[in-house]
Parts: sequence; structure tokens; C-alpha cells
Amino acid sequence: MAAPVVTLTTDFGRRDPYVASMKGVIRSRCPDLAIDDLSHEIPPQDLREAALFVETAVPHYPPGSIHVVVVDPGVGGSRRAIAVRAHQQILLGPDNGVLSLAWGDAPEVREIANAAWFRHPVSPTFHGRDVFAPVAARLASGEPFDAVGPLLTDPVHWALPVPTTDAQGVARGEVIHVDRFGNCITNLRLPGGVAAGFTLEVGAVRVPILRTYADASPHTALGLVGSTGRVELAVRDGNAAAVHGLGVGSAATLHITINMNR
Amino acid sequence: MAAPVVTLTTDFGRRDPYVASMKGVIRSRCPDLAIDDLSHEIPPQDLREAALFVETAVPHYPPGSIHVVVVDPGVGGSRRAIAVRAHQQILLGPDNGVLSLAWGDAPEVREIANAAWFRHPVSPTFHGRDVFAPVAARLASGEPFDAVGPLLTDPVHWALPVPTTDAQGVARGEVIHVDRFGNCITNLRLPGGVAAGFTLEVGAVRVPILRTYADASPHTALGLVGSTGRVELAVRDGNAAAVHGLGVGSAATLHITINMNR
Amino acid sequence: MAAPVVTLTTDFGRRDPYVASMKGVIRSRCPDLAIDDLSHEIPPQDLREAALFVETAVPHYPPGSIHVVVVDPGVGGSRRAIAVRAHQQILLGPDNGVLSLAWGDAPEVREIANAAWFRHPVSPTFHGRDVFAPVAARLASGEPFDAVGPLLTDPVHWALPVPTTDAQGVARGEVIHVDRFGNCITNLRLPGGVAAGFTLEVGAVRVPILRTYADASPHTALGLVGSTGRVELAVRDGNAAAVHGLGVGSAATLHITINMNR
Repeated sequence: MAAPVVTLTTDFGRRDPYVASMKGVIRSRCPDLAIDDLSHEIPPQDLREAALFVETAVPHYPPGSIHVVVVDPGVGGSRRAIAVRAHQQILLGPDNGVLSLAWGDAPEVREIANAAWFRHPVSPTFHGRDVFAPVAARLASGEPFDAVGPLLTDPVHWALPVPTTDAQGVARGEVIHVDRFGNCITNLRLPGGVAAGFTLEVGAVRVPILRTYADASPHTALGLVGSTGRVELAVRDGNAAAVHGLGVGSAATLHITINMNR
Repeated sequence: MAAPVVTLTTDFGRRDPYVASMKGVIRSRCPDLAIDDLSHEIPPQDLREAALFVETAVPHYPPGSIHVVVVDPGVGGSRRAIAVRAHQQILLGPDNGVLSLAWGDAPEVREIANAAWFRHPVSPTFHGRDVFAPVAARLASGEPFDAVGPLLTDPVHWALPVPTTDAQGVARGEVIHVDRFGNCITNLRLPGGVAAGFTLEVGAVRVPILRTYADASPHTALGLVGSTGRVELAVRDGNAAAVHGLGVGSAATLHITINMNR
Repeated sequence: MAAPVVTLTTDFGRRDPYVASMKGVIRSRCPDLAIDDLSHEIPPQDLREAALFVETAVPHYPPGSIHVVVVDPGVGGSRRAIAVRAHQQILLGPDNGVLSLAWGDAPEVREIANAAWFRHPVSPTFHGRDVFAPVAARLASGEPFDAVGPLLTDPVHWALPVPTTDAQGVARGEVIHVDRFGNCITNLRLPGGVAAGFTLEVGAVRVPILRTYADASPHTALGLVGSTGRVELAVRDGNAAAVHGLGVGSAATLHITINMNR
């Protein structure tokens, strides 16, 4: 049996020793596993960014993977810590919604309550090191999932804004993420094969949906169905958010321009 | 026996191929090991940051781990390269104090002198690639530690500023690190269980020591005993350093406010 | 046989889930391998930086390594995807020259055309996830290299600017990279052992070539033969590019000052 993989997603950055401490705790308790850094560059305490990140990355991982997600503004307070089994994978993190976009329809959610698995004394400001990392190591070592703690029926859900569609078929949503390239990713979805017949409006920009960057002229804006199925505004060889002054929350509208009766 | 883990901590950043070259050199000489990136975001040539980072991260790693630390402004000059055995782990780096906070009381310090283990020709500007990486691979392959070179009795120590305590029990220190969240970490220490009875003063801010962020009102300052036992100033859901204009070197004072006779 | 290592070099940064998705795709298809992050901090769409990075890093890796390089402004357009076998290693990336500095004199270049190895549906904007990652996993699993697709005889080459040398032996080139420390790396080369007898001129700065930083006075400029054999301008304990207002494209000249008849 292949060793499981433990992934780490945090808002800790890499200048401070927080990620390194978590890795050491995991290696000390389960030496023969792979640790994948997914991101430590989630903006500090940004639950929306973290929830979207986890939703996108996790489905690509194989069954048995263990994902530790620590974006945790409420650490040490009354928020619970949870372990979730979904899609044959395990997610560990605070119960603040950060895992909820990833876990799909029928997750098994448990409160992390088995203090025998923790690192002691548990720091009230660093559960990444003292709770999530050692619990990940235990589960990676083969301990049974249900030993983590009791079932929990009311985990916190993170709600993305929901687009609306009017009688004319115009869908209204907003930008939910701006990526490194300045692409403005919206909460509007289209099937991946769609490459014509729709117009995307974001802020004051109104452009057709095309198949890929190369279908637009250099330095001009275009709409795309991005790699996760979400509609996005891009500028070929440019930065759409910067050029057009857009950001998270900018209004986005999708118009059908194809003649459906053709 | 599990393969050993080699960790890397540098000030190289990730845009340049320096870290990648070190990883390649290690993999070429010892293919079956885990390489953990701890940080490559130590500020350039910042020995204090690096020494604190290593001190914090290393104790979490298991026996047998090999830690390569390259923050090395004196590379190619007269500074020595050292290998240290402490806490059943091995530390490799320049003899400029960067390892000295981590190695504790009774380290075995050797000069790295076994040129047969180096990559040749040795670049006078990149010992990370030509000295530390190949020596790490040799040690990870099972070569005996004492073959690295002769014992060294006068390694360079890095001295953190030492707090003073006056007759009234007031401890005076300073901020020694500001983390990504703006927490101002001082050289003052309190036992981890302490959660009341002390007041922390940093710059013009004077606040009680609380147990965790959630014990303060949103956006207000508080004192904490951080996850490494050091007293720090934080702002709940905010950035203490930015809000209060604090940084490394800011004066920090700890007052006892509890009635000890109670 | 040791598991192969797959390395990743991209311009994706770490805030977005693109790198994480690629890692998941690889782990899902080949669980028992090591994944080395080389860099995800290549400046967006900067083929020159990426090509230089790959050229420097790859030769340090062992035979059998598989390097995935995704800096891909033409994704989804007519640019081809290629797999290259050179120096007993494999390089995967877009056919835009990004691999060409690394592959040396006699590479075996194939078009990546075996769609059975892809992740479907293939997103026209993310071949890193849907083409390069799954192909890397197949090759790491032991599939034969020639099954990737047909031989390709006209891959795109990236041309670095070529220095000129005049009748007096003066070599003229330019700065091709500025590293994190502000060192200005030129396209001029000298043998590694050279440590005297040459003067380097970059912009308005004219300094001797020395052996290492320690041979210059603190905060003064010097020339060096860097760790890759390229001549560079540095400032001891300082940032040459910032101090002297230099950058990629700044003119660089190398003068022989040694008396060759001595």
C-alpha cells in the first residue's frame, strides 16, 4: 500500500516557522508519508479565498489523501475543530466553513475531540501545530476515522453568493476571485465545451465568451469558461483586474447572444 | 528504517534557481529521501530571523533529521562551515551563529572539512549547492557524522538581547520578530498556562495578557503567551505592528499585576 | 529501483489552486513518487526567466528525473506541447522555447500527442493540469517515452542575446537576470577559476572581477564569476541592481586588464 499523502493549506506564509513546525510534528509521528504544500499564501484570515482554494484542489487528489487546512481567525475561542470524510478523502480544519465548499453532498463530519492524539500542552493560538498536524499523522498512520471524535450534525457552511437568472435568461453574479494573472473569476458557470453564444459583462467591460486566450487579439479582453467551469474575464497577455479596475465583488452578468432557434 | 528527511531553510527566495539546484544535488546523491522546504523567505542575509526560525522549527522534527540552513553573507570568505549534532538531529550551515539558538546545551560541533564529499569545483559564492547539499546527502546516505571533519570548540554564537528584571519584578525586553499577522513577538517569556495577572507594554500600547485572541474584543490589542512561550502583542483580527507602528527592537515591558498574596 | 522524481516549475504563484491541482492529478495517477517544487514564482509569462531557470536547475538532477515546466502564454492556441529527452532526463512543457536552453545538443524532442494519457475534458486554458501533469505521471509510472507522440524536428528555440568580442578582446553583452540579492547576472562567461585580471563594466559601474564577496569592502561593488559560470555584478552586503539602477538589458562589458606577457 502506498503511503498516504498529507497536504497543507494555510495562511501562514513562509517567513515564519509555523508551517515548518507543523511539518516537523507530522514527520515525528508518521515518518513515511509525503507532505504536499498546497498553499501557504492564502491571504491572512481570508476564509473565502481558502474555501475556494480547497474546493478546487481537493477533487484532484486520490482516495486516502488527508488535507489539513488552517485558516483560523477563531483559534482558541469557541469554534470547533472538525474532521470530514468525503469523496474517500479526509479534510481537517476549523469549523468555520473553510472546508465546506469541498465536502460535497454527503460528508461525514466529526468534531476533533480525541485529546490523546493532540500535542500537549495545546497552545490556544496554534492548533495547526498541536491539533491538526498530530491528528493528520494519526490518521495517516492508519488509526480509524471514527476515533477522531463524535459525529457533528451542524457544521458551519460557507455560502458563496448565488447568481440569479431573470426571465430573459440573463444571469447576474459577481467576481469571487482574482488570480495571479488578473483573471476575474465569477460565480457564473457554463459547461466546459461552450465557446460561443454568450456575452460576459464585468463592470464596464462587455466581451464575448471565447474558447481560449489565443482566440482574442493581444491585449484585448475576453470571456472564458475557466478550468473549473466558472466564467471568467481575462485579458490576453494582460491583467484584466488591473487594466479594468475590477476586483472581488465586481458585478458580473452573462447574456445569451446565440440564436437558440437557429 | 524510514528514509531520513532533509530540510532546507534559506534566504534564497524561489524566483532564482538556487533552491532547485540544491534539491537536484541532494537527489542526485541520495534519491530515496524526503526533502522538506521549511522556508526560503528568510529576509536576505538576516541572521537574526534565520536563527529564530531554526530554533523554533527544529525541535519538532524527529531524531535523524538533517537540517540545511543557508543564510550566509560571508560565503567564500574566512567563515567556517559547520555540522552540528544536537537533540539526535543534524544541523548544517555556516558558522555565523545561524544554528546556535537551535543547538541547545551540549552540541557536537564539527567543521565541515571533508572535501571528498563536496561538489567540485566548489563555487566561492554558492556553498549551499557545493558544500551543504552534498554533505547532507552523504549523511542521509548513512555516512558517519564524525567523518565530516574535526571537532570545533569555538563556534560562533548568536546572542539574542537578554531581558532585565528590576527589583519590582518588572521585566524589560524588546520585540525580536514580527510575524505575517503583525504579531510582535518579544524576548520575554512566561509559562504557557499563564493567562492572567500580567500587563504587557510595547511602545505606547499597554494591555493585559490574555489566553487567546478570542478573549479580546475585535480589533483591540492584547498580550499573549505565544506558541513558543514568548510573550507577544497582537491585535484581534488585525495587525498589531502596522496599527501601532511597532517593529523589531521596539521596547517591551512586562508588569506583574496579579496580587501574589491572594 | 528508486521512485522517480517529478519537478514542477511554473509562473502560477501559490495563492491560486493551479499548482495544487497539478500535484493532485500527478498523485492520483502515480502515488509513489517525490514531487519537488522548483519554482512557482517565475514572473507571469516570462519565458526568458523560465528558460534561464530551467537551464540552471535541471543539470543538477539525476537521470530519470521528469521536469514539468508550465510558463505558457499560448495555451490553447496553436503552440504544440513537447516532451524532450536529454541528459537522461525528461522535460515536459509548451513548445515556446522555455525548455530549449536546458536540452543541450542532441535532444530527442516529441510532440505530446497521446490523448489517452490526458485528463479529459482538456481545458483549453490549463494544460498544466490536463496535459503535462498526467503525462508526467504516465512517464513516471514507466510508460515508454516514445509513446508520448511523434518525433518533432523543428521545436522552438529560445535565443539568449549573444555577446560580441572586438579586436581588443573587449566582450560586450548585457544583464540577463537580476537575482533576489540584486546581483546582475550577464551573458558574459569566464572560467570558474578566474579571480583576477578582468574588469567588468555594467552601466556606469566599473569594477574588477574578484573571487568572492569577501574580497570586496563592505557595501562596495565587485565583479564575480557566479555559480553558473556567468559574470555578474554584485555589491557586498548590498543590492547592486537597486544601488546602481540596473536591470535586465543593461549593457555589460568585460575588459582584460591582466598583462598576458607577464
